[in-house]
Amino acid sequence: MSEPVLNSAICHTTTDRVVLRGNDLVETIIGRKSFTETLYMLITGRWPTVGQTQVLDAALVTLMDHGMTPHAIAARLIHLAAPESLQSAMAAGLLGVGGRFAGTMEQAAALIERVAGADPTARAQVAEDIVNDHRQRRVGMPGFGHPHHRPDDPRSPRLFTVAAEAGVDGHYIAALRLLAETVDRAFGRHLTINATGAIAAVLLEIGIPTAILRGIAVVSRAGGLLGQLCEEEQTPIANGLLKLIEDNVTYSGE
Amino acid sequence: MSEPVLNSAICHTTTDRVVLRGNDLVETIIGRKSFTETLYMLITGRWPTVGQTQVLDAALVTLMDHGMTPHAIAARLIHLAAPESLQSAMAAGLLGVGGRFAGTMEQAAALIERVAGADPTARAQVAEDIVNDHRQRRVGMPGFGHPHHRPDDPRSPRLFTVAAEAGVDGHYIAALRLLAETVDRAFGRHLTINATGAIAAVLLEIGIPTAILRGIAVVSRAGGLLGQLCEEEQTPIANGLLKLIEDNVTYSGE
Amino acid sequence: MSEPVLNSAICHTTTDRVVLRGNDLVETIIGRKSFTETLYMLITGRWPTVGQTQVLDAALVTLMDHGMTPHAIAARLIHLAAPESLQSAMAAGLLGVGGRFAGTMEQAAALIERVAGADPTARAQVAEDIVNDHRQRRVGMPGFGHPHHRPDDPRSPRLFTVAAEAGVDGHYIAALRLLAETVDRAFGRHLTINATGAIAAVLLEIGIPTAILRGIAVVSRAGGLLGQLCEEEQTPIANGLLKLIEDNVTYSGE
Amino acid sequence: MSEPVLNSAICHTTTDRVVLRGNDLVETIIGRKSFTETLYMLITGRWPTVGQTQVLDAALVTLMDHGMTPHAIAARLIHLAAPESLQSAMAAGLLGVGGRFAGTMEQAAALIERVAGADPTARAQVAEDIVNDHRQRRVGMPGFGHPHHRPDDPRSPRLFTVAAEAGVDGHYIAALRLLAETVDRAFGRHLTINATGAIAAVLLEIGIPTAILRGIAVVSRAGGLLGQLCEEEQTPIANGLLKLIEDNVTYSGE
Repeated sequence: MSEPVLNSAICHTTTDRVVLRGNDLVETIIGRKSFTETLYMLITGRWPTVGQTQVLDAALVTLMDHGMTPHAIAARLIHLAAPESLQSAMAAGLLGVGGRFAGTMEQAAALIERVAGADPTARAQVAEDIVNDHRQRRVGMPGFGHPHHRPDDPRSPRLFTVAAEAGVDGHYIAALRLLAETVDRAFGRHLTINATGAIAAVLLEIGIPTAILRGIAVVSRAGGLLGQLCEEEQTPIANGLLKLIEDNVTYSGE
Repeated sequence: MSEPVLNSAICHTTTDRVVLRGNDLVETIIGRKSFTETLYMLITGRWPTVGQTQVLDAALVTLMDHGMTPHAIAARLIHLAAPESLQSAMAAGLLGVGGRFAGTMEQAAALIERVAGADPTARAQVAEDIVNDHRQRRVGMPGFGHPHHRPDDPRSPRLFTVAAEAGVDGHYIAALRLLAETVDRAFGRHLTINATGAIAAVLLEIGIPTAILRGIAVVSRAGGLLGQLCEEEQTPIANGLLKLIEDNVTYSGE
Repeated sequence: MSEPVLNSAICHTTTDRVVLRGNDLVETIIGRKSFTETLYMLITGRWPTVGQTQVLDAALVTLMDHGMTPHAIAARLIHLAAPESLQSAMAAGLLGVGGRFAGTMEQAAALIERVAGADPTARAQVAEDIVNDHRQRRVGMPGFGHPHHRPDDPRSPRLFTVAAEAGVDGHYIAALRLLAETVDRAFGRHLTINATGAIAAVLLEIGIPTAILRGIAVVSRAGGLLGQLCEEEQTPIANGLLKLIEDNVTYSGE
Repeated sequence: MSEPVLNSAICHTTTDRVVLRGNDLVETIIGRKSFTETLYMLITGRWPTVGQTQVLDAALVTLMDHGMTPHAIAARLIHLAAPESLQSAMAAGLLGVGGRFAGTMEQAAALIERVAGADPTARAQVAEDIVNDHRQRRVGMPGFGHPHHRPDDPRSPRLFTVAAEAGVDGHYIAALRLLAETVDRAFGRHLTINATGAIAAVLLEIGIPTAILRGIAVVSRAGGLLGQLCEEEQTPIANGLLKLIEDNVTYSGE
């Protein structure tokens, strides 16, 4: 038979059951497991330890909101234009969880994995090579630097502390710290480990696959955007934002 | 002064702090509060009780996944076409959290609120009027019936149990049950309270505003879609789904 | 056999052909038909007359852009956040072609069809009833009024002129004009027929189905947003818009 | 003054005018210019010649539809789930105009520009180097090969013919053909120039900036998806597609 076999191990439903990766939703999940625990299980196939849940929760709450971001503004404006479709406003904002924002998480993870995966005696040299390569190409080091938080992004050390208290191995965090020391030395000035860099490291510690790291930021920001849109429902500012922009953008055509 | 005053109470950042609705992110949230608790706080402005967290977690895990839904298929296919942009695949799936799916949650909530808001002695009559109105217009009762789960959606009674154990008042759940009895009597057959109906009631019990109920489903499904896409990364089926459809849709043009 | 028959008459491909609704793409469309003509054919199944093409082109160019709209701002900000994914920026903006914007086109079309579909002697009364109903419910008449264009939206009479010159029947335009007279009399002041109202009427004249009217606005605005994003690539302002908003939104939390 | 100057030359509106890049919409565009001409003008700032319009129309109609694509399926399924929001269904499909689809257009354009930009005597060597580099890295040549159209994508030669008849210079098309000869020789077998490769070349010929090439595909596909959704409104198959998938995907969990 030529048809490909199409399998999925995620979810199975019958007339009276919903089963998520082998776990009966009604009997074993609803009322017994948190959203964060179930998210971890759906991604990895196993229930998290208490420590892994703490780390995933820490990562999720860290990225929920950061004020008047492109995501929040886009969500509020699309809500203004299409109020009947809350999911559209949320989706519009989430589309901005991209290469300049959460994408750096994946790129940072790739660098962390290169350092952590090297022979212990070679790691310093690998870090050196990575940093020099970025300097020569004059591109920023993903996971380092922040436009607002100076000299240090306060979220990063806190994430490392939570991870340490949760009992993670520390392998990837150590690799990121080694990169950080190398960055500061090579650039001759201090560049903070930013929140996306720190989150890349702590999520690697708990076994979240690199390929879907960005998705953790999408889930997190979905929660934050709902907070923004709830406020927009109650005390709307989208019309004011629109007027502000109309009043401040000059037509420069003929 | 003619400019509108533009305020937001959601988030405030400085060089060394991120504050979410008055709570310092680093000092009081990361490592101390779960995603679910922080979501509740961002929406309502106050931290949830243990019981409120249990109810919100129960609602969130219930809607995460339901197998090969339009949302999961759309997300997997868009991931196939634009693999560089995980957020696009997630957003595409989330756009389906709409009127035939989570929208019924809002409509169910509106009916529940009408019954619960009536004078106790008038509630049975209000329920009667609502059901008769739907019968006469020959439209389905939002929150009732399910294409797969028969005779009963197993998720609904479990959600009520969790809510009862969590100590909610029970006002809205009672209103939904009164509607259910009226539905069965008026239609002359049993129609299950479905999961979105039950979730509408339990979320009203913990004070989630009706206007953003659908957003809770968006957050929940974002988590579920990440599970689907993680599997798609590891054992992809999107190409097989595409071939299956190509092989089974006949061109009926000239 | 229990499987539903799945047919589509839109497109058929073989190793050496692409056929769109019975028309060979390479032989009869590329280089011979415009985008607008092919769009009309894909929607209705027949090639447009010269007049129908003129009307569809007129409708399409009318809605392409209107300055610093929610759509343009959302597209520019999402482009800033996810520059690797131009389609995401365009999709984010297009999600705002919704109920407060192009949705009014569908609602206006529904009213126009009610008037135009009535017996000629009854039309004035039908228009009267529609307008009174909206006045009593204190909701705006879809297709009427504009926040900026006063006293008249200049696009509407031009669209009617183009349609007349193109030789349309004029049935639906007459119905909209009848509604307009009734509106002015009933409200005691002049409310302009706005562009979306006028477009609803002219698109009905050329046989575009009401159910997908909003989609014409989506196609049109996709073109306009591409213009905005092309400018954003060359002389970016998204960072400036973000800074403007950050500087003007005050944190009102504790 | 510290505020950045925010300018846009795209659109200016007053109470009685809409001006697009210096052109009065009502006086000079509606009824006088086609959608394709106005799209060209919004992107480049100048009105196209007759030949440039022919080429842009040819590119636009070529990519509108290709049958049961990921885009069409996603759009139909999201329409099923959120029928109240046609723009969401269209946006969901458009999110798939990504790296495996139209993204190859940008990558092909980059290669074409490298060859075309080289000194005439060096072009053969530049093409040789590009092809060898791809062979050594074992990655596909963007713009070459097609899963269905063998041995040749019939759309590509037609696009070149249209461009030649329209009087373009032919510089970029020649560069793509040089790449094609080099590919066939280096790989020892014939790889077709596919439609996205050909479109990259002809759009470069008429001055569309590389950075927004993908957006032309988004506009084009928006039109095609509207055709798909119009059919879905009239003779729906989304439920059937969903059932087909449910019946053919096996649960492989415990």
